[in-house]
Amino acid sequence: MKLLRYGPAGAERPGLLDDVGRIRDLSAIIPDISGKSLSRAGLNALRRLDPAALPLVADAVRLGPCVAGVGNFIAVGLNYADHARESGLPIPDEPVLFNKAPSSIAGPNDPILIPPGSSKLDWEVEIAMVIGETAYDIPESDAPDVIAGYCVCHDVSERSFQNERGGQWTKGKSSPGFGPLGPWLVTADEIADVQDLALRLDVNGARMQAGSTATMIFGLHFLVSYVSRFMRLEPGDVITTGTPPGVGMGQRPPRYLKAGDSVELGIAGLGTQRQQVLAHG
Amino acid sequence: MKLLRYGPAGAERPGLLDDVGRIRDLSAIIPDISGKSLSRAGLNALRRLDPAALPLVADAVRLGPCVAGVGNFIAVGLNYADHARESGLPIPDEPVLFNKAPSSIAGPNDPILIPPGSSKLDWEVEIAMVIGETAYDIPESDAPDVIAGYCVCHDVSERSFQNERGGQWTKGKSSPGFGPLGPWLVTADEIADVQDLALRLDVNGARMQAGSTATMIFGLHFLVSYVSRFMRLEPGDVITTGTPPGVGMGQRPPRYLKAGDSVELGIAGLGTQRQQVLAHG
Repeated sequence: MKLLRYGPAGAERPGLLDDVGRIRDLSAIIPDISGKSLSRAGLNALRRLDPAALPLVADAVRLGPCVAGVGNFIAVGLNYADHARESGLPIPDEPVLFNKAPSSIAGPNDPILIPPGSSKLDWEVEIAMVIGETAYDIPESDAPDVIAGYCVCHDVSERSFQNERGGQWTKGKSSPGFGPLGPWLVTADEIADVQDLALRLDVNGARMQAGSTATMIFGLHFLVSYVSRFMRLEPGDVITTGTPPGVGMGQRPPRYLKAGDSVELGIAGLGTQRQQVLAHG
Repeated sequence: MKLLRYGPAGAERPGLLDDVGRIRDLSAIIPDISGKSLSRAGLNALRRLDPAALPLVADAVRLGPCVAGVGNFIAVGLNYADHARESGLPIPDEPVLFNKAPSSIAGPNDPILIPPGSSKLDWEVEIAMVIGETAYDIPESDAPDVIAGYCVCHDVSERSFQNERGGQWTKGKSSPGFGPLGPWLVTADEIADVQDLALRLDVNGARMQAGSTATMIFGLHFLVSYVSRFMRLEPGDVITTGTPPGVGMGQRPPRYLKAGDSVELGIAGLGTQRQQVLAHG
């Protein structure tokens, strides 16, 4: 299934994409794409629905972030060997974890507002996992049981906030709009091999990032188990899993986003995001 | 007002402390100590109630964390000059920010479970601010308008996870039970001078930490403004603001918590927490 949320920011309704790509409303069935709806039982109940019997939604509607009620929004740093090298950092022995503020989460096509004081606004296409079950200290073999599905995440980053303001990365990862999620949450059963998906990101139509989940240092199932050693994961939590090479900071010379730029990013099977970069205020 | 949450973990109800220290039930008035209830309007509505007219709750009830629906749980590192020195780190030019998982939040007297793999479990008494209004990029002069109140926070820390596992601190700050909040949320109007409050923490009855918010490097109102430059703060968010000297890592030799230890911590006007340290599993 492809689950989504549509409507004005802050007032989204749950929906799903039918077999011919039209949005069907789920708001009479579940309160939101969140919490218990993401559990195995919740997803199975949705699978039993006949999409054609659900109300049809106008195509032109805004898409919101594809999951609501995110508690932990965890990100993995330097999880593609080539990206670690372009960042001038050693390949980590174990995953580097940091947080993005849940309040950074945005719809997949919402504009990216340049934050006040920003000088190094950068892009990162990533595959994110959405957690469907509570999980603490679980083995890697249990990871498939707690992953509801996957989505595209744009891990928008401000490099001066991230790297020049005290050493902890969260400041550079958390501004409003820095976490577009979607267009949809694709349930895990729809992905034949999650470690063999092409990722790409274009700025103003020029390809900047091209990679594959096949070249991750730490695989997705391992990452769920690893994160669960340090915190209790809850339904609706999001783990975004690092970016392949080609970010702006890695260009020679570095290149950053400016007002008027457009970004398009996508992952095979998970859909596409398109964002305009806008000046603040 | 002193607002609180009581009852079994995960099923807490909202309450307040009346003039003689008895718990009064608020569950017929507000859904929880969260969201809109923390706004200026929400708090003013609660102030208009007659506590004596609210149902009385048995004294022996468990206290839960004093706020629910926490999105951003932000912590400030090295915010007392003496603590920075004992940690062997320079006094920061600007606040160091990191995240605690919202799923680490616990009641003020819940046991602290030693996480699997832990070897350096440490204590930190802190004063936390609870945010009552949405705030992004606000000046320091607006900070009092967005702070609903204050509470004791035990920023429980695992130093090997924090400092020996990749450089980002969140791994050592996020295990279940690492964020006791309470016993109550004391509204800002009840604190005469929030920058002149004594903090203290005892382990097995011996005083380990003793300090005052008067010696903070970055004051509370400045911190709200500062954090708001990097993320949108939402009602229910918590900012815990650093610890005075005397943590286990700073002892010579370092001393860490072990199963069977008891911890008691408190802040003048904000109440006391008591925790037993228990082995995992």
